Amino acid sequence: MVEHVDELVPLLDLEQIESTLFRGTHPKTLLQRSFGGQVLAQALSAAAHTVGEDRSVHSLHAYFLRPGHTDAPIIYDVEPTRDGGSFSSRRVVARQHGQHIFQMSASFQISETGLEHQDPMPEVPDPDDCPKVVDIMSELTGNGPEMWEWGVLDLRLVGQSHEPRVGAVPLPSGDRAAASRMWVRVDGELPDMPHIQDCALAYASDLTLLAAAVVPHDVIWGSPQVMAASLDHAMWFHRPLRADRWWLYDQTSPSAQGGRGLSLGRIFQDGQLVATVAQEGLIRVAP
Amino acid sequence: MVEHVDELVPLLDLEQIESTLFRGTHPKTLLQRSFGGQVLAQALSAAAHTVGEDRSVHSLHAYFLRPGHTDAPIIYDVEPTRDGGSFSSRRVVARQHGQHIFQMSASFQISETGLEHQDPMPEVPDPDDCPKVVDIMSELTGNGPEMWEWGVLDLRLVGQSHEPRVGAVPLPSGDRAAASRMWVRVDGELPDMPHIQDCALAYASDLTLLAAAVVPHDVIWGSPQVMAASLDHAMWFHRPLRADRWWLYDQTSPSAQGGRGLSLGRIFQDGQLVATVAQEGLIRVAP
Repeated sequence: MVEHVDELVPLLDLEQIESTLFRGTHPKTLLQRSFGGQVLAQALSAAAHTVGEDRSVHSLHAYFLRPGHTDAPIIYDVEPTRDGGSFSSRRVVARQHGQHIFQMSASFQISETGLEHQDPMPEVPDPDDCPKVVDIMSELTGNGPEMWEWGVLDLRLVGQSHEPRVGAVPLPSGDRAAASRMWVRVDGELPDMPHIQDCALAYASDLTLLAAAVVPHDVIWGSPQVMAASLDHAMWFHRPLRADRWWLYDQTSPSAQGGRGLSLGRIFQDGQLVATVAQEGLIRVAP
Repeated sequence: MVEHVDELVPLLDLEQIESTLFRGTHPKTLLQRSFGGQVLAQALSAAAHTVGEDRSVHSLHAYFLRPGHTDAPIIYDVEPTRDGGSFSSRRVVARQHGQHIFQMSASFQISETGLEHQDPMPEVPDPDDCPKVVDIMSELTGNGPEMWEWGVLDLRLVGQSHEPRVGAVPLPSGDRAAASRMWVRVDGELPDMPHIQDCALAYASDLTLLAAAVVPHDVIWGSPQVMAASLDHAMWFHRPLRADRWWLYDQTSPSAQGGRGLSLGRIFQDGQLVATVAQEGLIRVAP
């Protein structure tokens, strides 16, 4: 359970064993497998600690190789791949019980200027006019809010994509686009640590993205019928953001097939496109 | 110059030095830096050779670390990261003159079934009704077709995105969406080798994607004013395809900023979404 910012921050503030070797902990949790967003955020934190303060992360590409175990810490081993004049590249391998559970490559850049454009931000209702995701999930899955692991994230569902299922009267599949929009923020103020906003965004970006891929189908995300697991995760950080203020997560799924679904996410804050996210996941549905 | 299929195929058919070590050659070329699509395709070919024939690539994530040199072969070192019951993971590091120039992780999967949906294919004119990209590039840059390195690819420009510039009367920036659609095929029949269609798609997918990011701006792609370099490249292979038959490359750029542009590509064939591509590139424009 990560209920408060003061439980999230220690997760992202890793113990430095050696200059490029780090150890990350788990929160007290009911989960048996590590939450992917936590591993991603910890890996990014490890990589960022080895890069000069004049450089910020602009992209990362990760694969989840094996489930992480919540009963043991995770070791993050950073390879300083390259330090150039403008860019720094890092690779991080996460290890538990002698096995690689996760790998990530990330790239950092000095501040530059150049061509400027972005997708416009969609017009959506304000967060205060949107229902809380934790309430919807409790209704859909029958698990009470006390089973919810991510209390530190305030998530509000925007638009119609899930709404027809809240009353347990699903529309015919095919009538629902593979899309899901949410307002998200870390509920509380993050401290002024370098990179912590980026790491918190990575943490939150893994929680709901893949679910967009099941919206068109007559299955309920989070129910025992659906076995889902993140396969990869890519992020492009376009502009500075604050994860602890409202951002809009515009999630769509261009395709599902072969037991997998791909989701793309655009993250907007104050009218700016601040990040783009891509994730493919394994989705197996019990008959 | 890769003019014919019988010049492309040897590029993708690597010399196997040891079970997980491969050597790739360059074509005769006017380029000083290796074409990124060639390095990507060769790395995928190397990885695929180490995976059981019951598994196909479903995703890859690559970083371009340093320019490749066209005057020397490239060594591809494959790390067999994991072989599970359903998935195989590989990492490939490309090396030249003792330096890492490129790294890629890729994931392969056995055949499975599951949820099915996809973005619909846009309605566009037939390839025969669309102008050849090589002719447009020759007019824009002043380089004759004999300077074109990719004769093996038949590329046709669809839609309005570039057209207003062909007559050298650019529209005001902001009036052009960051988008570019092309029909593409390998011009000639690829042999029946495992994975060769996937490798050829990877090869072609790197050539035009980043250019979508400059469409809204008053600069000419391929001119000395624009210095562009691929930073990363990700692909998700959704459904089987033939790279040597027409496919539609629907390319958009959600954002450019900080000297970088991000482009996303959807690849359709016969109405099916067969792949999704993402690439960020460095784009520096001379004043």
